[in-house]
Amino acid sequence: MSSAQNKRARDYGIPFDGTTGKWNAITDVTGVTVGQVTLIKGSGDLIKGQGPVRTGVTAILPHGKNFIPVYANFYALNGNGDMTGTHWITESGFLETPILITNTGNVGTVRDATWQWMDEHKYYTAFAKDYWYAYPVVAETYDGILNDINGQHVKKQDVYTALDGAETGPVQEGGVGGGTGMICYGFKGGIGTASRVLSKEAGGYTIGILVQANHGSRSQLIISGVPVGKQLRDSLPVRIAGVNSAAIFDTIGKETGSIIIVLATNAPLLPHQVKRLAQRIPLGLTRTGAIGGNGSGDIFIAFSTANKNAFSYTEDEQVTTMPNEKMNALFTATIQATEEAIINALFAGETMEGINGNRVYGLPKEKVLEIMKKFNRLKWKS
Amino acid sequence: MSSAQNKRARDYGIPFDGTTGKWNAITDVTGVTVGQVTLIKGSGDLIKGQGPVRTGVTAILPHGKNFIPVYANFYALNGNGDMTGTHWITESGFLETPILITNTGNVGTVRDATWQWMDEHKYYTAFAKDYWYAYPVVAETYDGILNDINGQHVKKQDVYTALDGAETGPVQEGGVGGGTGMICYGFKGGIGTASRVLSKEAGGYTIGILVQANHGSRSQLIISGVPVGKQLRDSLPVRIAGVNSAAIFDTIGKETGSIIIVLATNAPLLPHQVKRLAQRIPLGLTRTGAIGGNGSGDIFIAFSTANKNAFSYTEDEQVTTMPNEKMNALFTATIQATEEAIINALFAGETMEGINGNRVYGLPKEKVLEIMKKFNRLKWKS
Amino acid sequence: MSSAQNKRARDYGIPFDGTTGKWNAITDVTGVTVGQVTLIKGSGDLIKGQGPVRTGVTAILPHGKNFIPVYANFYALNGNGDMTGTHWITESGFLETPILITNTGNVGTVRDATWQWMDEHKYYTAFAKDYWYAYPVVAETYDGILNDINGQHVKKQDVYTALDGAETGPVQEGGVGGGTGMICYGFKGGIGTASRVLSKEAGGYTIGILVQANHGSRSQLIISGVPVGKQLRDSLPVRIAGVNSAAIFDTIGKETGSIIIVLATNAPLLPHQVKRLAQRIPLGLTRTGAIGGNGSGDIFIAFSTANKNAFSYTEDEQVTTMPNEKMNALFTATIQATEEAIINALFAGETMEGINGNRVYGLPKEKVLEIMKKFNRLKWKS
Amino acid sequence: MSSAQNKRARDYGIPFDGTTGKWNAITDVTGVTVGQVTLIKGSGDLIKGQGPVRTGVTAILPHGKNFIPVYANFYALNGNGDMTGTHWITESGFLETPILITNTGNVGTVRDATWQWMDEHKYYTAFAKDYWYAYPVVAETYDGILNDINGQHVKKQDVYTALDGAETGPVQEGGVGGGTGMICYGFKGGIGTASRVLSKEAGGYTIGILVQANHGSRSQLIISGVPVGKQLRDSLPVRIAGVNSAAIFDTIGKETGSIIIVLATNAPLLPHQVKRLAQRIPLGLTRTGAIGGNGSGDIFIAFSTANKNAFSYTEDEQVTTMPNEKMNALFTATIQATEEAIINALFAGETMEGINGNRVYGLPKEKVLEIMKKFNRLKWKS
Repeated sequence: MSSAQNKRARDYGIPFDGTTGKWNAITDVTGVTVGQVTLIKGSGDLIKGQGPVRTGVTAILPHGKNFIPVYANFYALNGNGDMTGTHWITESGFLETPILITNTGNVGTVRDATWQWMDEHKYYTAFAKDYWYAYPVVAETYDGILNDINGQHVKKQDVYTALDGAETGPVQEGGVGGGTGMICYGFKGGIGTASRVLSKEAGGYTIGILVQANHGSRSQLIISGVPVGKQLRDSLPVRIAGVNSAAIFDTIGKETGSIIIVLATNAPLLPHQVKRLAQRIPLGLTRTGAIGGNGSGDIFIAFSTANKNAFSYTEDEQVTTMPNEKMNALFTATIQATEEAIINALFAGETMEGINGNRVYGLPKEKVLEIMKKFNRLKWKS
Repeated sequence: MSSAQNKRARDYGIPFDGTTGKWNAITDVTGVTVGQVTLIKGSGDLIKGQGPVRTGVTAILPHGKNFIPVYANFYALNGNGDMTGTHWITESGFLETPILITNTGNVGTVRDATWQWMDEHKYYTAFAKDYWYAYPVVAETYDGILNDINGQHVKKQDVYTALDGAETGPVQEGGVGGGTGMICYGFKGGIGTASRVLSKEAGGYTIGILVQANHGSRSQLIISGVPVGKQLRDSLPVRIAGVNSAAIFDTIGKETGSIIIVLATNAPLLPHQVKRLAQRIPLGLTRTGAIGGNGSGDIFIAFSTANKNAFSYTEDEQVTTMPNEKMNALFTATIQATEEAIINALFAGETMEGINGNRVYGLPKEKVLEIMKKFNRLKWKS
Repeated sequence: MSSAQNKRARDYGIPFDGTTGKWNAITDVTGVTVGQVTLIKGSGDLIKGQGPVRTGVTAILPHGKNFIPVYANFYALNGNGDMTGTHWITESGFLETPILITNTGNVGTVRDATWQWMDEHKYYTAFAKDYWYAYPVVAETYDGILNDINGQHVKKQDVYTALDGAETGPVQEGGVGGGTGMICYGFKGGIGTASRVLSKEAGGYTIGILVQANHGSRSQLIISGVPVGKQLRDSLPVRIAGVNSAAIFDTIGKETGSIIIVLATNAPLLPHQVKRLAQRIPLGLTRTGAIGGNGSGDIFIAFSTANKNAFSYTEDEQVTTMPNEKMNALFTATIQATEEAIINALFAGETMEGINGNRVYGLPKEKVLEIMKKFNRLKWKS
Repeated sequence: MSSAQNKRARDYGIPFDGTTGKWNAITDVTGVTVGQVTLIKGSGDLIKGQGPVRTGVTAILPHGKNFIPVYANFYALNGNGDMTGTHWITESGFLETPILITNTGNVGTVRDATWQWMDEHKYYTAFAKDYWYAYPVVAETYDGILNDINGQHVKKQDVYTALDGAETGPVQEGGVGGGTGMICYGFKGGIGTASRVLSKEAGGYTIGILVQANHGSRSQLIISGVPVGKQLRDSLPVRIAGVNSAAIFDTIGKETGSIIIVLATNAPLLPHQVKRLAQRIPLGLTRTGAIGGNGSGDIFIAFSTANKNAFSYTEDEQVTTMPNEKMNALFTATIQATEEAIINALFAGETMEGINGNRVYGLPKEKVLEIMKKFNRLKWKS
């Protein structure tokens, strides 16, 4: 498990553009809290229902435990995945629930547990006694290489723990929470986060990104413009019992896995403007090498914490909208923070062994730094 | 040519729900102006470029000749048609130009003429000297049964006349403007309009609809729930030289032609809320019998004249949004006004002969009223 | 509980256009099977987790228990609801799982149970040992007026029972399966189904519709063009403990609840053509009075059982596509079958009492028939 | 004006991945022809209607002058632009007309001229004598910095010349055709093209790309991963009379202009699969630095020349679809060819002076090569 105290990619001299927030995390957007539960248990052969377990759940709450619906929207670069609750976001413009990320087999448990948690915490404003509903947003990536995914090990209590424990401040990265068993560009992936703060003249707004990175094949990996993956094509391949891993993870052009990306901002955007941010997320993603591969569920959700008063059942509300003409700084920040969050996930990833002795290696940082140096990009400043 | 002084459908006792505005027209939405140019020339055999001519152009200006971009959105029930300029509406949320409706062969002329007119009238706010651009919204339906459509008879001057002459007040209906040569459910169609005013408790907002109706086959026609078309299946069929018109207009389930529908409202809606209105337009359309047939370009644009300050290049703006929860009255009004506008187009249509002696009959009102009576719906009050 | 042996709407002389299939049900599309589990338990005061229980689950399998992905697509008239698994349908063109419909609070349980069932039944074709995934399609409507919805009473075993028991033949309608506790236009609603068979010249294809109808306010109800709801505005209102039901169900223009509609066809359509069918579903829905109200999750999924070979991991496939130009008969059939399926749900609905003694009445058929007669539409033949 | 015989980017040692077709052009897709008309006239002060003229039109015909509708789709990364005719592509799955690219003020002329040209060349299959219609696809970017754009200098005859003269073989790049007056990353841009051929095992298909590149600010420019633009931030800025060009073209994060991208392939894809290619185009675009800036109309159209028989008015057709699972090689090729086509446009651009003496410089190739060398990427081979 990685810790937020660890050195992150930029601490090693990987060059990234733009100015980060205090924690270089999605929590730099005021109000946003993150809670994670990591489930690691057992080793050896897979016995469905028993393990080994390498999974978890990550919760993102736009305004912590306050019920404040936020303007939101989503975009799927490649819809080979699930994210529940999106129909109402498109229709209403609002995200009314926390966002949870887990493994593919546990979406339902997490969804119904979130429903229960909202019911018990009176998270919502009811129309009438006992009358309320919501469509919890739950997304997923597939961790069945390392985890007993068909065992559905994430339980209701884990969801409660993640939701109850959500807090601001640094966010753990790598093999934690929903990202516990994830693989990214053939190395250990998982949770990553980053943020950007705009200049005062551009509005001073913050963009925060959190990814659950489980995508990409080795040779695709690009770090700050350098084709690192090609140089590491044959290093430390994923080891899968009874399978030639090259066939799955290293065929040129083959991309497996998925990536869920959550964007938070405090910029005053209307729902259709939030969509514009969601559509720029792939631009940051591809700068790390991704192609939106067929097997990859690349689904992105974005929300704005501004306009806290926007939601009402009964009253007209005054909301603030920034000019479209001034959104470019947000687009750039979105791309930059997305790129860094993914590289952060890789730098935080540590070698992990899962079901049937399957093994995924952490990014070999020293080798990566050598390659960056070779291309004159280490500590390069723009 | 029909006149707005003519008796309209409800004046004959056709029952419609809801309360109309002063003119029962799109111009009941304050600020909206309409200008129309009708081109009727020649008769007899078609000689491409010479005629006969049965066409025109209709212009709708959201705030008259003031440059005030309005929140807008669109929906296509069946995209067998063109409406230029929609990409920027989706992206920005704004309609920045007038809306023009003409025949299919003249979309380009009308589009570039509108560009010129905007340039000459400094309709826009320029970024810099001589630096501006816009994407004029031009829609069309096909009038080649009656009109020398490949002759492209709508000229730049006609577009200027329509734009310059746009005004508030009653709107001419039937075979006028862009609707001059149009056919609807096998009878003479064209321009129709209607409006609804919400109760004070529902906000008192107005919905205005203008249609260019050129769609439907005879047997589909429904008026206020009564299957009128089936009763008139063999009456007064369209006569087309050298063609068995039944093959085109009356095969069961066959729908040709198209309908363009423009919705205006003064309700304070954000762009994604305007989209919700656009998506309800088909519900009114189908209540007159339409099925969104393959050959039918059923494309709808909606805008809100509220939030006049919404557009800015440089400043944040405060805009008003009404609760989603209160939009039902707008949905109902949209459906009601759309239904009535189409029936109005039919009631205003008068028999017309065009190219090659092709002939389309006006709706036989007396027969229609008899049918309505037979089904106990004439002057039926809810 | 209603039985398929009961007289259905057309048996009472309600006029509908078009030719039905053998069972006038979605199962008229060869291969489609339906399984339902109805949960009715207890009465009196609501105690969360204990009941009273008035809910269930309905399963639709495109090719029974064979794993044959089908071309599919979806459309939301109003996204105030959830339907999981749609992102991959949009992206891939394929539906790879059964479709399940339940109550809003149980979507997750049903989703994860379906995952387990697919895993245990090797419903899928695996890439590799223990390596597979899917995004089960689960939709919902809200039954919290009659049911202890927050008690989440649908369990894994119920889902298995519905899936295992799915069969062809007549389909039970009314308060059964996922529709057990549903309310439609202020009367008892639930499951309804209908079908249409095209003429040989139009291809002879079948359209089958299944609805879970929980939508609409009383005054909106239209049956075969007749405004029945207005005539019944004050009859047999829903009784809700401690609430003036009029405030929720009968305010003019207020629509609550939702409707999920599933369309099956054997017409050879590509995914973008299937989408065209999904977009015509609202046209049938609105002919029964619905407006796509804000509180109504009107979400529709359509699939084609033709092109059984379309899905392959490795090989190019030859698939059949019918001309767009010939789709109008399918559009018409979609509208007709949707309209009848909803009216069928109403005719099958029987008075039900649920939590806190809340009571919803079955449609008063005799009164309805009188109204139809008054408007000369009973046994009216086109 | 540049010539196709000129050295192109890869000839200078700029590294690109993948294997090109014979001409490294969109015409490598069999059947695709390109015709271009370049209009350069006058110099000095702008007099609207007289010049100076720096514009033109580029025509792409999927199957040359044969009327063979092709499966197509589109995607807009940022819809600040126009592309006519897209509604019918979405609905039907087919592109039935040539694609034309010109300046923003001339979209209409080009659109109606194409209509005339199709009418005169009987490009279409008519339903009946004199009965046909089409929605010509015309896209644009803004050349008003160099060209008298409001003078609308592209005339009907120019469109005919481009369409009539379209041919296979090498495609001229840089300041030609629709790209004549375009600016890209603050250097001279315009038309660029490239292609990729897949390995036999991946199907051997070709992807061809043609761009009209008019987008980006200087500091954004990336060439093969190297941040070239930052190194050239102050070199050879665009000179605009009376304007501080830095304010428009070099503010950090500011992107002006637009890019239209056309993708052709012979891979057997259905319309929804073609959409997947269109959605990957932004991934190639952003690898050259673009962010989908607010002022940039980044609109993309893609089509497949396979399945020549797909379109029919009357008969079912057998068409071929490749597995989604095998599309990754096409995604990669799309990204690679898009990236190279844009860099090709820049390498072909030559310094141009236009209205009011405004001046845009060609890319300083020697400086660029030095920068590439500094970052060890010149002639770098993967």
